[in-house]
Amino acid sequence: MRDVQNETDDRNLEIDRVGVRDISWPIAVPDRDSGTQETIANVSLSVSLPRDYRGTHMSRFVEVLSSQEKRVTFHNMEGLLETLRARLAARDAHALFDFPYFITKSAPVSGAKGRVRCDVRFDASLVDDEFDLVTTVTAPIQTLCPCSKEISDFGAHNQRAHAVMEVRLSGFVWLEEFVKMADDCASAPIYSLLKREDEKFVTERAYMHPKFVEDAVRDLALAMRAEPRVLWYRVSVASHESIHNHDAFAVIVGDKRNG
Amino acid sequence: MRDVQNETDDRNLEIDRVGVRDISWPIAVPDRDSGTQETIANVSLSVSLPRDYRGTHMSRFVEVLSSQEKRVTFHNMEGLLETLRARLAARDAHALFDFPYFITKSAPVSGAKGRVRCDVRFDASLVDDEFDLVTTVTAPIQTLCPCSKEISDFGAHNQRAHAVMEVRLSGFVWLEEFVKMADDCASAPIYSLLKREDEKFVTERAYMHPKFVEDAVRDLALAMRAEPRVLWYRVSVASHESIHNHDAFAVIVGDKRNG
Amino acid sequence: MRDVQNETDDRNLEIDRVGVRDISWPIAVPDRDSGTQETIANVSLSVSLPRDYRGTHMSRFVEVLSSQEKRVTFHNMEGLLETLRARLAARDAHALFDFPYFITKSAPVSGAKGRVRCDVRFDASLVDDEFDLVTTVTAPIQTLCPCSKEISDFGAHNQRAHAVMEVRLSGFVWLEEFVKMADDCASAPIYSLLKREDEKFVTERAYMHPKFVEDAVRDLALAMRAEPRVLWYRVSVASHESIHNHDAFAVIVGDKRNG
Amino acid sequence: MRDVQNETDDRNLEIDRVGVRDISWPIAVPDRDSGTQETIANVSLSVSLPRDYRGTHMSRFVEVLSSQEKRVTFHNMEGLLETLRARLAARDAHALFDFPYFITKSAPVSGAKGRVRCDVRFDASLVDDEFDLVTTVTAPIQTLCPCSKEISDFGAHNQRAHAVMEVRLSGFVWLEEFVKMADDCASAPIYSLLKREDEKFVTERAYMHPKFVEDAVRDLALAMRAEPRVLWYRVSVASHESIHNHDAFAVIVGDKRNG
Repeated sequence: MRDVQNETDDRNLEIDRVGVRDISWPIAVPDRDSGTQETIANVSLSVSLPRDYRGTHMSRFVEVLSSQEKRVTFHNMEGLLETLRARLAARDAHALFDFPYFITKSAPVSGAKGRVRCDVRFDASLVDDEFDLVTTVTAPIQTLCPCSKEISDFGAHNQRAHAVMEVRLSGFVWLEEFVKMADDCASAPIYSLLKREDEKFVTERAYMHPKFVEDAVRDLALAMRAEPRVLWYRVSVASHESIHNHDAFAVIVGDKRNG
Repeated sequence: MRDVQNETDDRNLEIDRVGVRDISWPIAVPDRDSGTQETIANVSLSVSLPRDYRGTHMSRFVEVLSSQEKRVTFHNMEGLLETLRARLAARDAHALFDFPYFITKSAPVSGAKGRVRCDVRFDASLVDDEFDLVTTVTAPIQTLCPCSKEISDFGAHNQRAHAVMEVRLSGFVWLEEFVKMADDCASAPIYSLLKREDEKFVTERAYMHPKFVEDAVRDLALAMRAEPRVLWYRVSVASHESIHNHDAFAVIVGDKRNG
Repeated sequence: MRDVQNETDDRNLEIDRVGVRDISWPIAVPDRDSGTQETIANVSLSVSLPRDYRGTHMSRFVEVLSSQEKRVTFHNMEGLLETLRARLAARDAHALFDFPYFITKSAPVSGAKGRVRCDVRFDASLVDDEFDLVTTVTAPIQTLCPCSKEISDFGAHNQRAHAVMEVRLSGFVWLEEFVKMADDCASAPIYSLLKREDEKFVTERAYMHPKFVEDAVRDLALAMRAEPRVLWYRVSVASHESIHNHDAFAVIVGDKRNG
Repeated sequence: MRDVQNETDDRNLEIDRVGVRDISWPIAVPDRDSGTQETIANVSLSVSLPRDYRGTHMSRFVEVLSSQEKRVTFHNMEGLLETLRARLAARDAHALFDFPYFITKSAPVSGAKGRVRCDVRFDASLVDDEFDLVTTVTAPIQTLCPCSKEISDFGAHNQRAHAVMEVRLSGFVWLEEFVKMADDCASAPIYSLLKREDEKFVTERAYMHPKFVEDAVRDLALAMRAEPRVLWYRVSVASHESIHNHDAFAVIVGDKRNG
């Protein structure tokens, strides 16, 4: 059979990224409590393609994914990219994994346990021999509006919000540690299971800790500053306003790599 | 050219519905304030197919959609289905239109105006010569938890919620009237633009009108009962709980057609 | 603490369904090849509420979900509903589980193995002491247009499509069996990993087996008719037309329960 | 009332972006054929916040949006940002508009007309007094696999694909011109309405113009190179593979601003 992909191409254009995406695939990630957590990732894999090749070999991306041990971690992203690069004879390689991850939280008074879902992304690249990994953790939190509390004779609007933490790291951090940082910057953490005494606690805690998205994102940025394993961060908080049909959001970017 | 669709089929199976779906299409709907509102619908159109025909004529569905005047209302759904039925030589016909619709609301104290989006569905069918139309209006509202208010020394968790009103009608009802019914069953309505004096008003109103989803859905069902143009209803309220990462919901179905 | 939910309600309206929804939760389902497959479900749980109670106990739904063994099957849905009903002192109960499930397929010539995702729903209810379970399996397939093939001098448009099989069953059926039925009604099955010899095989197979959505859905209905464990079915096929920006679809419903 | 937002903040952290997002809002955009097209945008507006202010004034973003004439174009993005910046007393401002846009296409043989939806994004920023606008147009196309055609005795797999064109421009370009560029790089354009003679034409055209995503993205990059109004581009093509349940994609970035 003629190998169309290996034909030469005369358009004289290198392709920055070519590969497969939107592949749903079961993976296993390290879990601080139970060792390993099985989950399902949406995966994208790509490489660069030199100007003189017409096409890449799409089936090899899926072969590499299949041949990996199922376990996907901060640690084996670089190995995956090197395998991709070698298998596809490419200079650069990229991998993206998006997946849910479950934390077990204990309710603040009763101690009742329940799972809370957060969402994780590994965005890894190997470009010109330089490895880069951005990890993103999105955690649900609660925010209560300081202005609403201040101006109202009683009550204060509050809502579900999301803290998004994008980081470049110098050392391993458990996903659980990120969720803790998000909870600490919130008016109150979010739980899946709360008894009445817990609901009282959480309601009062949120009322006592009002936070604009501006407050929450600054507190989150301070936590990133204080964490030595974080080299670079882009943190954001978005509140799904209970009095509006849109979101309020705030973003801070910080880089500790140059001084 | 051979007409493959018109070939006979020997599998002896009538097809209940065949057609096109997930067509994005601009439409215009009646607007109480401005006469007409331009919006964009996701459309599905289908007919029944007798057992002896192999296929329908897919292009005719798009022709019918194109030939319609752009205006889509409660009133011309039956005409659309009759056109489909005639054009496709079919016994039964179905049409589904999903589209956003914007209401202009005035803030409760300042009177500042802002648009609020709700979502509408027309689900129309003509089966065995009987026309049926179910209209669904989804409106954003706010709910504040009565239990959280009662057990807490201060504050109460509240959140964005959605009221969903599915109805069969005996007469025309403005979309604005449905949104009013949803707002009336809520702890407080939702606005896109609120000044500080409005935010105080809305915060206090919600605190003074705590509603479980059970309360809100019952009040909505009572409103449907009281409205003579409503023959049948399926109402639901879902609260995007600010203390959880999941929703609370409640549903009531009522039928006034048989006594 | 005052128990607001247990207060009496004078609106005199029973609530058909009240509960929690959009809970993300890890579950394990039976896998024909490996015994058990870990996956992640979107869960909804609800019960009916008598007219004289103001509210249900939302936290108990999550407690029931937490206390279940993780394993979710055709077999333990009824037990789950009975637990819900008892725990919430309700007459009726409902549960909905939506989750991805992975099948390992071997490429048709090379035998190379790769995972293919399908999507599954269990929709279970216990109403007036009658248990009902509708299982839905959605599987990706390929369809090739018979009309396009017939009228063109070469080629034929083809596309990714989805077969949706909703069934009520009298006995256990592996999810793998449903995917096989979907593949058999297609122009060609879909794989995640195909070598060049496989791609040739699949391309030619699709060209030799052109199928309208009308053809595919009829063949799928015939398969359901022939399968004695299927009591009722609603099958549909939707093609994501490669020459259009919309889908073609067809639906057949069949009931074998009354003769 | 105390003005909580205007309080000083001692965390000493500037916020890069703070504002509102996920606002659904009707807009009108220039249409080459009819002058103006009404559509619905998902909008995000934000500004920077100096380190010594605790919060921004969220309601002003919606006021600015409301006070704009409805018309949103390449031309008035800078004015919108300047208004935001002035109204919020901010150094930097950002705006994001995502909206569908409909092109009317004539079928290639019959000339039958039908609307085809594409999707547009304006991503505008005013940072340190420098205005930047990235326009993104996503258009549906068809691709047919050259390898599948070459190795198979008959047929070739083909599928719906999307061309994504992100550009920085030196002069006005109609959205219709972008869609034309996407169609020209495809195996065949996509239409909403095709008669049988058109379907034959499109099928044969695709078969005669097989394109890998690598081919299509290179042809699209060449078109961007050749267009003098394009200063910078990031083009990608993603094929929703009909033989797989995942997508193939390719990306090329080009910058003409520095020689």
